[in-house]
Amino acid sequence: MQVTETVEITGHLMDSGLLSRVLDDIRGYGGEYTLDKFDLGYDKDDPSTVRMTVGAEDEESLQRLLMRIQTKGANLVDPGTPEITEVTQDGVFPDGFYSTTNLPTNVRLGGHWVEVRNPEMDCGLLVEGDTVRTIPMSEVRAGMRIITSAQGVRVIPPITEATEGGFGFMESDVSSEKPQRVLVRQVADGMREAKANGQKVLWVGGPGIVHTGAAPAMVALVEAGFVDVLFAGNALATHDIESSLYGTSLGVDLDRGRGVEHGHEHHIRAINTIRKAGSIAAAVEQGVLTSGVMHALVKNGNRFVLVGSVRDDGPLPDVYTDVLEGQRAMRAELPDVGFCLMAATMLHSVATGNILPASIPLTCVDINPATVTKLADRGSSHARGIVTDVGLFVEHLARELSPSYADRK
Amino acid sequence: MQVTETVEITGHLMDSGLLSRVLDDIRGYGGEYTLDKFDLGYDKDDPSTVRMTVGAEDEESLQRLLMRIQTKGANLVDPGTPEITEVTQDGVFPDGFYSTTNLPTNVRLGGHWVEVRNPEMDCGLLVEGDTVRTIPMSEVRAGMRIITSAQGVRVIPPITEATEGGFGFMESDVSSEKPQRVLVRQVADGMREAKANGQKVLWVGGPGIVHTGAAPAMVALVEAGFVDVLFAGNALATHDIESSLYGTSLGVDLDRGRGVEHGHEHHIRAINTIRKAGSIAAAVEQGVLTSGVMHALVKNGNRFVLVGSVRDDGPLPDVYTDVLEGQRAMRAELPDVGFCLMAATMLHSVATGNILPASIPLTCVDINPATVTKLADRGSSHARGIVTDVGLFVEHLARELSPSYADRK
Amino acid sequence: MQVTETVEITGHLMDSGLLSRVLDDIRGYGGEYTLDKFDLGYDKDDPSTVRMTVGAEDEESLQRLLMRIQTKGANLVDPGTPEITEVTQDGVFPDGFYSTTNLPTNVRLGGHWVEVRNPEMDCGLLVEGDTVRTIPMSEVRAGMRIITSAQGVRVIPPITEATEGGFGFMESDVSSEKPQRVLVRQVADGMREAKANGQKVLWVGGPGIVHTGAAPAMVALVEAGFVDVLFAGNALATHDIESSLYGTSLGVDLDRGRGVEHGHEHHIRAINTIRKAGSIAAAVEQGVLTSGVMHALVKNGNRFVLVGSVRDDGPLPDVYTDVLEGQRAMRAELPDVGFCLMAATMLHSVATGNILPASIPLTCVDINPATVTKLADRGSSHARGIVTDVGLFVEHLARELSPSYADRK
Amino acid sequence: MQVTETVEITGHLMDSGLLSRVLDDIRGYGGEYTLDKFDLGYDKDDPSTVRMTVGAEDEESLQRLLMRIQTKGANLVDPGTPEITEVTQDGVFPDGFYSTTNLPTNVRLGGHWVEVRNPEMDCGLLVEGDTVRTIPMSEVRAGMRIITSAQGVRVIPPITEATEGGFGFMESDVSSEKPQRVLVRQVADGMREAKANGQKVLWVGGPGIVHTGAAPAMVALVEAGFVDVLFAGNALATHDIESSLYGTSLGVDLDRGRGVEHGHEHHIRAINTIRKAGSIAAAVEQGVLTSGVMHALVKNGNRFVLVGSVRDDGPLPDVYTDVLEGQRAMRAELPDVGFCLMAATMLHSVATGNILPASIPLTCVDINPATVTKLADRGSSHARGIVTDVGLFVEHLARELSPSYADRK
Repeated sequence: MQVTETVEITGHLMDSGLLSRVLDDIRGYGGEYTLDKFDLGYDKDDPSTVRMTVGAEDEESLQRLLMRIQTKGANLVDPGTPEITEVTQDGVFPDGFYSTTNLPTNVRLGGHWVEVRNPEMDCGLLVEGDTVRTIPMSEVRAGMRIITSAQGVRVIPPITEATEGGFGFMESDVSSEKPQRVLVRQVADGMREAKANGQKVLWVGGPGIVHTGAAPAMVALVEAGFVDVLFAGNALATHDIESSLYGTSLGVDLDRGRGVEHGHEHHIRAINTIRKAGSIAAAVEQGVLTSGVMHALVKNGNRFVLVGSVRDDGPLPDVYTDVLEGQRAMRAELPDVGFCLMAATMLHSVATGNILPASIPLTCVDINPATVTKLADRGSSHARGIVTDVGLFVEHLARELSPSYADRK
Repeated sequence: MQVTETVEITGHLMDSGLLSRVLDDIRGYGGEYTLDKFDLGYDKDDPSTVRMTVGAEDEESLQRLLMRIQTKGANLVDPGTPEITEVTQDGVFPDGFYSTTNLPTNVRLGGHWVEVRNPEMDCGLLVEGDTVRTIPMSEVRAGMRIITSAQGVRVIPPITEATEGGFGFMESDVSSEKPQRVLVRQVADGMREAKANGQKVLWVGGPGIVHTGAAPAMVALVEAGFVDVLFAGNALATHDIESSLYGTSLGVDLDRGRGVEHGHEHHIRAINTIRKAGSIAAAVEQGVLTSGVMHALVKNGNRFVLVGSVRDDGPLPDVYTDVLEGQRAMRAELPDVGFCLMAATMLHSVATGNILPASIPLTCVDINPATVTKLADRGSSHARGIVTDVGLFVEHLARELSPSYADRK
Repeated sequence: MQVTETVEITGHLMDSGLLSRVLDDIRGYGGEYTLDKFDLGYDKDDPSTVRMTVGAEDEESLQRLLMRIQTKGANLVDPGTPEITEVTQDGVFPDGFYSTTNLPTNVRLGGHWVEVRNPEMDCGLLVEGDTVRTIPMSEVRAGMRIITSAQGVRVIPPITEATEGGFGFMESDVSSEKPQRVLVRQVADGMREAKANGQKVLWVGGPGIVHTGAAPAMVALVEAGFVDVLFAGNALATHDIESSLYGTSLGVDLDRGRGVEHGHEHHIRAINTIRKAGSIAAAVEQGVLTSGVMHALVKNGNRFVLVGSVRDDGPLPDVYTDVLEGQRAMRAELPDVGFCLMAATMLHSVATGNILPASIPLTCVDINPATVTKLADRGSSHARGIVTDVGLFVEHLARELSPSYADRK
Repeated sequence: MQVTETVEITGHLMDSGLLSRVLDDIRGYGGEYTLDKFDLGYDKDDPSTVRMTVGAEDEESLQRLLMRIQTKGANLVDPGTPEITEVTQDGVFPDGFYSTTNLPTNVRLGGHWVEVRNPEMDCGLLVEGDTVRTIPMSEVRAGMRIITSAQGVRVIPPITEATEGGFGFMESDVSSEKPQRVLVRQVADGMREAKANGQKVLWVGGPGIVHTGAAPAMVALVEAGFVDVLFAGNALATHDIESSLYGTSLGVDLDRGRGVEHGHEHHIRAINTIRKAGSIAAAVEQGVLTSGVMHALVKNGNRFVLVGSVRDDGPLPDVYTDVLEGQRAMRAELPDVGFCLMAATMLHSVATGNILPASIPLTCVDINPATVTKLADRGSSHARGIVTDVGLFVEHLARELSPSYADRK
C-alpha cells in the first residue's frame, strides 16, 4: 500500500453492523486496513469508536475509497482542507469530484466546519464564498468551484438508536407478513409528529391510488391537513380527473367494482377537457372539475408537482414535460418536509428518493415487493417498506387521521 | 373422419365466448365439426342454441373429444346409454373412464336422467343401483361399476347470465387495481346470502391471516357466525396458537409490528404444548388455550379440518398426516356450503378447488397474483380473485359483518 | 333509443370471441342492439359476418359508442362522410374528436377511402388536403382540421387467422410455465422474418439487460444485425457504459457474479465521463468507450433513442430530457419496423406500445408478470408476453441468431 | 437480573454482523449483557473472540435465552453437564426441551464432547447410551431421554470465511438482477465438487421443471450423473409422465410452445396408467413409460422420494400419502449429500430445508422471489437464492455439465 490515511468512526458499530459494512467497502475497493484503536461501548446504549488506518495503491484510489467509507460515517481523523477545482465545461464535473450522499455533511472552509445545504445523493459540492451546497451535474456551469477530495469533508452518519423503536424502524424488511394495523398507526404517528413540528407531509403517489378506490380516503386526508405536497406524474392526476368527470378510471367502474374495458378513451378526453380549461386550477375555478384528489388539493391551497414521462398521453397542462425542470420543481418543495409517504409508484418514488435528505422519515407502500426493494437498492436504505394494498391502506390511514372520515361509515 | 356424433349446446354462446371455446377444443383434440343449426338469441337476454356434428378418427378419440366438450355443456342430442365397466384392480379406473368436471352432471340410467351426487373434478362416475356419484381414483375398489363413455352422460353448463352482475362476476380479472372497498362489500354480501339461505360459509386459510394481524378480525367473524368451517394446514393453527401463547408469530411481534427473528422456536414449543394437552379442543377445555382463531372455533362449536404437509413441524395432534384421509375429511364438510373464501394459502386453496362443486360461489384473496392465477389455471375458473392485503381485507370484512367489531374502534 | 345506426362486422367472430366483446361494449356504453343478419362461416376457416342495428339515447352517446365498437372492427354499413372541425386552441382537440386506435384505419374523403398514415392510439385524425394522419394532442395547433365523428371512418380489424399458429400467437398468456426454448425460437423466427422482408428490428430495453449479464449476448445480436434501433432510457445506457468503464453495474460485479454494493457512485462518474466527451458517439470516437451495447450500436451505425425520466441522474448527453421531444424522436424511427422486442423495462415498453401500430409483431420479455399484464391492460393486447429471465433469454437468442456467438463457448 | 451465565463467541464477528445479531437476540428475549473481554482480530482474516455475561429474570428465561444465542455460536464458557429428562408421553417432549438448530452440535456426556448425529432444526436431542441424535417431536416415545438444558450443549457456528468467495456466497441476495451465466457456473462447480468428494447431489423439484420444457435438460443431467436423489411431489412426476405419454403438460403443448387448455384430463389418465402398472419402476420395466425424468432416474438406478400433499390427484402409486412417513423417507436419503439444488417448488424446498444440515451447500432457483425469501425466513439462511427462469437455468446447467447435451444443438 503506497498511501494511507487514518479514519475514525463512532456509533453503534456492533449492533448496527456498520463496522462490518465499512470493512467490506474497504476490501471491495481493493484497499487495506489496520485497526488502531477500538473503544467498545460496554453498555448497550453506549456508542463505540474505532480508529483505523486505511491504505490504497495510489492517491486516486485512496480518495475514492475515503469518499466511499465516508458515506458510512468513517471520517478522517485529520480532516485537512478540501481540494477545490474550477469547472471548465458546462454540465460536467471536474475529474475526481466528491460524489455526495444524502446524509448531513460538513465541509472545512477557512478553518471551520460549514454545513452543506440541501443534502442530496449523487451530486457535487459547490463552494460559493463561505457556503457549500449540493449541485446536480446538469446544473453545473463553467467557473463554479467544486470539491474534488475526501479531505476537508465530513459526513454525519445516521443515529441508529439501539432502542427497540429505533431498531424496529431500521429493519428494512420488505414483507407482506406484518400486522398491518400497527403499520398504519405508525405512519399516522409519523405524519402527526411532522405536523406537530410545523413540518410538511409529502406524498408521492401513483395512479393505483385511484384504481384501488382510495381517492375519497385521500381527499379526506387532504382536508384533514395531512397532504401538504403531492409529487406525481400525469397518470395519477389524469385518472383522478377522469374518475371525477366520467366515474371511471382506465376502464374500472369504481362504483360497481368491476373491470369495464369500455372506458378506455375517457382518459384522453379528460386530459383534453383540462387542456381546454388551461390548467387543473382553472378547471376547478370554472366549475369543470368538482371532486377528487386534485380538486381537493386546489381547494385547500396545497402544492403539487406533476412530472411527465415518456409514456404519457396528453399530457395535462400542469405536467412538466422536461424532466430536469421537473426535478428542479420537486427540489423546491423539499424544505420543511418532515415526513414522506410514497404510495403505489415506482418511478416517482425512486425520483423522490434520489433528492430526499436521509434525515426525513420515509415510508413506501406498494403491493409489489419489487418497488420497495428497488428503492432500497438505489440508496434510500432508510426507507421503510410496507407491502400491502394501497387502497385499503389509505382507507385505514384516513380513519386514523380524519375523525370525520372515520365517522362516515 | 370415420366416426361422428351430433351435439347441441345452449346458452349465451356469443356473449360468453363459450362457443368459440368449444370449437377450439374440437380442433385441439384433432376433431372436426360442421354446424348443423344455429338459433341465435336476438335479444340480449335470449340464449342461443347451436347443433353440430362432431367427428374424429376413431371411436376412442371421439369418446375423448365428446367427454371434453361436454365439460363446456355440449351434450349429445341422442344421449344413448352409458357404457359401464367393472373395476378389476383396487385404486385403478377402467380404461376410457369418464373423467368428471365440477359441474352438475346427469347420467341416463333405466331411461331416466339421474343426477350425479357430489360433483367433483377429475373423478370417475360410480354407478350404485340407480344412483351415481363421483369417486376419486384412490377410493375405487375391484367390483365397482364405473362409466366409460360420453354416451349417457349430460353436463349442465354454468348459467352465465348476460346481466351486469353476472358478467362482473365471471370476469376472472386477477388485478390489484380494483376499488377494494367494493370488493369487500361483495364478499360480505355473498356470505350474508349464504347464511340467509341456511347454508354454511367455508374458509380456507393460510398462516398469513395470523402474520398480517388479521386474527382478531377473524375471531370477530367467527363470533358473528360467518366462519362455519375452516380448512387449513398445520401452519395457520400453529401460528395462531403460538400467537396466543407467546404473543408472537414466526418471529413477528404482533403488538409492536416489528420483525423479531428471536421468536423462532416458539412455534415448536406451542405445538408441544397442544400435543401434551391432547388436542386443540382439550387445550381450550383445560384453559391452556384462551384466545385466537382456533380457540374461537372451538368455543363456538364450529368445524375445522387441518390437513398436514411435508413441511410441517410437529404437527398439532388435530392434523391429518395422511393427505387422502385429509381429503376425505374435507369432502365430508362440503354439503350445504354456500360460500367459500380462500385467504392467503395456495396449497389448501388448490386442494379445496379440486373438490368443490362449480356451483358454490368462491372468492380467493391473496397478495400474490400467482396464487389466484394458479387456481384458475387448474380448473376453478369460476373463482373470483382479489389481489390485496389479507390483513386489511379481513379487517374490513369484519367491520362490514360484525357490528360489535366495527364499534370497537 | 332515440338514434340508431347499422354496423357490420366480419371475421372469425366465434373463434376469436370478437362478437361477444363488441356486444359487451354496446351494453357497457348503455346502448342497445338488434341482430339483423348473421352469415356464419360453416367451415372453420370461413369468416362470419354479422349486421346489427345499434342505438343510443342521443347523438353524442351514439357517436361515442360507434367510435368505440369501431376499434373492434364494427364499421358503419353506410359510412357517410366525416365531420371535420377546426381546432381553435393550440394543444386542444375539438369536442367529440375521434380518438384513434392503433389499427389500420380509413377515412372517407371526396368519395374515396383514404388510408390513415401512422396508426397510433389515443390520437386525433388530422385532415390535410386529401390525406389523413394521426396527430397527438400536444402537437395540434389552431386552424388544423380534425375529424369529430364516427361517420366516414373505417377500422380494419386484425386478421386473426383461425389456424394453429395464429391462435397460438394471439393467446396472451402471461405465464412462466411455458417451454422456454420454443419461445426463444419463435422470437428468433420473428426477427429473421422481419430482416428477410427488409424491415427493421426494434428493441426496447431496460437496465436489467446489463444487470443480468446479457450485454455480451446483445452485442453479438447487434453485430449479427438484429438490433436496428434501440429505445431506452438513461439507465440502460449508463449501466452499460459504467460496466464498460468500471466492470460494474450498479454495484454488481459482473465477472464474479456477486453483489458489490461498493460500486455505487460509478454510474455518476460514468455519466460525467460521457458528458465530458460530448456524446456517446464522441466517446467512442475518442476511444473513451470501447465496449458494450452502446459502443456496438455506434460502431455498427445503428440508431438509438434515449428518453429520460424524472428519476435520472445526469443524464447522459444523448438523453432527451423533454419527454414530448423524446416521443417525437421515437415516432421518427417507427417506419419500416417489422418486429419489436421489449426486454426488462416497463416505462419504455408502455411508451413504445402507445405509439406502435398494431400491425407490428411485438414480444415483451420480463421476469415480472406485472409488466406484461400492464402492457396488455393499456391497449397493446397483441403483445406476446414471456415471463422469463432476460439474461438467459437474450443469451439463448444470441445462440440462435449469431453463429459466431454460439460457437464461442 | 437474577441469574447469569458467561458465554463466549469466536468468529468473524465484525465482518459477518454475527455479534450484533447475538446482542439483538439478548435484548429481544428481555435479557441483559456485559462485555467481559474482546479480542479483536487485527488482520482481516483473524477471528475475533468476545466473552460476555448474560443475565435474565429467572432460570427458565435464562435457559431459553442461552439456547437461543447458542444457535449463533455463543456457547457457555463453563459448559456444565446437560439436564436430561425422561419422556412421559408419546409424541410430546418434556417441558424446556432443547430445540435444535441445523448446525453441528456437541453434547457433554461423561466428561466428553459427543457429536450430535443428523443435525436438523426444530428437533429434540435424544440421549441413547453415550450417543446423541436429533429426534423429531412425532417420533419421540415415553421412556426416551431428552436434553432439557442449554448447559452441556455446544453449537459450532458456520465458518464464514472473510474471503471474497465466502462472502459472496453468504450474501443472501434475492435478486433477479445478477449476471446469470456466472450463477449457472457456480452451481455447476458446486455439483462437480460434491461428486469429486464422493458425495451425492440432491435435487428438490417442482412441476415447473416440466412446464418450462426443462425435462430433456434434466434427463441429460441424470445421465451425466448429477442427479443422485430427487425429492418431489406427485405433480412433478405426474406431469413428467403425462408429458411422456401424451406430449402435454397440464395443457401446455411442449413442442409448439402454446397453451392448450385441452389437455386438461391427461394428467389423471397418466396417473391411472401408472397405478395400473403398479409403480413407476414397473411402468418402465413393462415398456409403458419410455422417456422423461422419472424414466431416466429409474434407468440410471437413482433414488427418488415423492411425498404427497392435500391437493394431489390420484396420486401415483410411489407417492407417500402420509407426510410423516414421507419425511422419514427423505431423512433416510440425506447421508452423504454434498450439494442440494432446489428448483421451482416452495413446498418441497421448505420441507427439505427443515431437515437439511446447515453444512450442506444449498441453492434455490425460482422465478418467484417469494419462494427464496420464504426459505430464508424459515431458517435456511445459508441458502443461496437465484431468481431466474428454471427452464433456461436447467438448460444452461446441462450445457455446463453434460458434454453430449452441449453438443446436441
